[in-house]
Amino acid sequence: MTVNINRDRLVETMKEQAEIGATEKGGLDRLALTDADKAIRDWFCEQLEELGLDIRIDEMGNIFGYRAGVNPDAGTVLLGSHLDSQPNGGIYDGALGVISALEFLRTLEDENISTESGIEIVNWTNEEGSRFPPAMMSSAVWAGEIPIEEAYATTDQDGVTFVDALERIDYRGEVPAEPQRDYNASLELHIEQGPYLDKGGYNVGIVTGIVGLRWGEFTFYGQANHSGTTPMHYRNDALVAASNLVTLIRVIPGTLGERTVATTGVLEADPASINVIPGKARVTFDLRDPDDQIADTGVERIKAEARAAAEREGVTWEYKERMRASSVDFADRCVTAVREAVSDLGYDGRDLVSGAGHDATYTASVCDTGMVFAVSEGGKSHTPEEFTDWDDCYAAANTYANAALSLAGVADVTDND
Amino acid sequence: MTVNINRDRLVETMKEQAEIGATEKGGLDRLALTDADKAIRDWFCEQLEELGLDIRIDEMGNIFGYRAGVNPDAGTVLLGSHLDSQPNGGIYDGALGVISALEFLRTLEDENISTESGIEIVNWTNEEGSRFPPAMMSSAVWAGEIPIEEAYATTDQDGVTFVDALERIDYRGEVPAEPQRDYNASLELHIEQGPYLDKGGYNVGIVTGIVGLRWGEFTFYGQANHSGTTPMHYRNDALVAASNLVTLIRVIPGTLGERTVATTGVLEADPASINVIPGKARVTFDLRDPDDQIADTGVERIKAEARAAAEREGVTWEYKERMRASSVDFADRCVTAVREAVSDLGYDGRDLVSGAGHDATYTASVCDTGMVFAVSEGGKSHTPEEFTDWDDCYAAANTYANAALSLAGVADVTDND
Repeated sequence: MTVNINRDRLVETMKEQAEIGATEKGGLDRLALTDADKAIRDWFCEQLEELGLDIRIDEMGNIFGYRAGVNPDAGTVLLGSHLDSQPNGGIYDGALGVISALEFLRTLEDENISTESGIEIVNWTNEEGSRFPPAMMSSAVWAGEIPIEEAYATTDQDGVTFVDALERIDYRGEVPAEPQRDYNASLELHIEQGPYLDKGGYNVGIVTGIVGLRWGEFTFYGQANHSGTTPMHYRNDALVAASNLVTLIRVIPGTLGERTVATTGVLEADPASINVIPGKARVTFDLRDPDDQIADTGVERIKAEARAAAEREGVTWEYKERMRASSVDFADRCVTAVREAVSDLGYDGRDLVSGAGHDATYTASVCDTGMVFAVSEGGKSHTPEEFTDWDDCYAAANTYANAALSLAGVADVTDND
Repeated sequence: MTVNINRDRLVETMKEQAEIGATEKGGLDRLALTDADKAIRDWFCEQLEELGLDIRIDEMGNIFGYRAGVNPDAGTVLLGSHLDSQPNGGIYDGALGVISALEFLRTLEDENISTESGIEIVNWTNEEGSRFPPAMMSSAVWAGEIPIEEAYATTDQDGVTFVDALERIDYRGEVPAEPQRDYNASLELHIEQGPYLDKGGYNVGIVTGIVGLRWGEFTFYGQANHSGTTPMHYRNDALVAASNLVTLIRVIPGTLGERTVATTGVLEADPASINVIPGKARVTFDLRDPDDQIADTGVERIKAEARAAAEREGVTWEYKERMRASSVDFADRCVTAVREAVSDLGYDGRDLVSGAGHDATYTASVCDTGMVFAVSEGGKSHTPEEFTDWDDCYAAANTYANAALSLAGVADVTDND
């Protein structure tokens, strides 16, 4: 069977959540464990209560709402995403995933549908990681990838620890942050945050996996000196070596793979003074590819270029790995469930590998996992300009609902009358 | 006649001044108008008093000490430099110039030499400009190049105005900050801050002028976006354009002139986040050449490269001129006086154009001006590692004394007995 969620209610609920932490520019500032995050959590719990769900809050503040299935042996399907935002984020991001899951559960109630598997909705704490790094912290703890003590001890820019911030907003639960049910599948909906769906004219994305990610950092050490009195051939300019590397990181992906991306986000010169040759410069990179071998080759290429850039300028360098996440291939049955939903609903979907990490990265280590992507206009993300029109929100949410229903299995539909 | 200053006393006085504002690393932190600056000023005034000089403090806190000549029509020779330092500076810099002038005056007293011209020693306020930009602020006001109201209103990083800081240390004098005497020449001694003398094995520098200076700033505007989800060919990365420009600024001098130098001291990416494509990047440059035409051509080349770098990356850009100082050719009679002193003393000197600006830039607009350079080991400057051995300090100071004496003209030498 095919369900159709309530488009108007989806839109109204999306608008309602967007008021909590709203910014003047029409975006969201709902940084993890702030007052705005507490407010959206309180609001979310109210929605779960209205649905009569069994609410559970774990030690990481992850909020779960459970709707029982009819078959105790059929396990539980986990749905949801995150309600926190970047400091200057958009209103869709993870929120659309949580609201879509909520709308699916409301639809099950509206239509008196019972499922074989239980269904659980989740709002993961601190997915963004912009206040407390790393990103996806709480699904990582839940999946056993990060020790809870380490997560608790993480501090924000003001030195506040995660655990203190969590207690301050009264969301440190007592349930251990680990899988409490026998999950047979997990499905997440998120906006694409990239341009492929929009540029290709598709209205929903079938996510087949998540790219492998490599983060690294180089520091070049040269000789700080007077910009006016030091001849060009006596210089060991750390910033020149660093800048040279940035231009090479820009072109390396074009030599590797169709989906390889590499970025320098941070370049810092020291001392940053107009008339001093920089004696030190720090450069980061972020390289991703669906194929872990290509990603590793990319890191080696970047290191080789760092070495060459340093030699050209007569400076020394250090390398530090900052993060390494293997690529994830989603389970066939989850991908198929999404693909069939797209087909059943007559939408125009395409397969995609997610270029961004998601909580699904970690649920995938616990149970079969899949994802649905909603269109991101122009691929804009983490900005108030992020935009998905309501038709595209609906298409993604409806796909999500039907894929979830297929994974959970329809047990019975009771006539209302 | 030839004078010889007292080497031991020069060294002792240099060591004495270096204790005021001394840092643990053996350098100086004697930022303009701080307590350390007040302390060195008090100390300097004591030295002037001991010599029986006529002390004058002007509205900018410039401290003058006057020793009359015998010929009222012969004007005054102005000597000196500055006692302030960078926050992490060395002990020689401008201090060697002031102490050498002091030592010359002491020698005139020791040897009962009277001069045709009057001789005036000066300690210019805030030459470094690192707390209150620009550099050479107070000689510029004195020469009529910067209005005093503008200098007074300049604020430091904490929002303190120059005039309040000057009053706080009790060095806001009442004498107008403008030439109060009929100066017939000015001579400044400073360390080279570059490697030419040291690398060439010379022991003193005959400065023939000061390079022309151009400061500019580019801002590139691209599109901030997610580093994982934005394909390489959809990017407009402001940092890539900026970094590209830095690598080109590095090589432009090699296409222009033997003495051309160009530097990027500041490169800022925004937002500086490891997983965000920078939407904005700011790059500065500092370009210098003894020939103003070459310097102007250099700026045009840099702009052309900025345009090309922006086009390659599909970003827009803005340019802002930050400073333009024409090159200075010192007066033949002053350069000759220095050259003859080097020759008379049997030193090994070479002609140099100063790559750095000095207070002499501004005295040159008031009267005939020249400079003597002391050796800087390895060209190190604005660092505690700045070093000039005492033999080289002495050679420069002795050259300075004899050139000054020649400009002032010996009137009489009285036998002590």
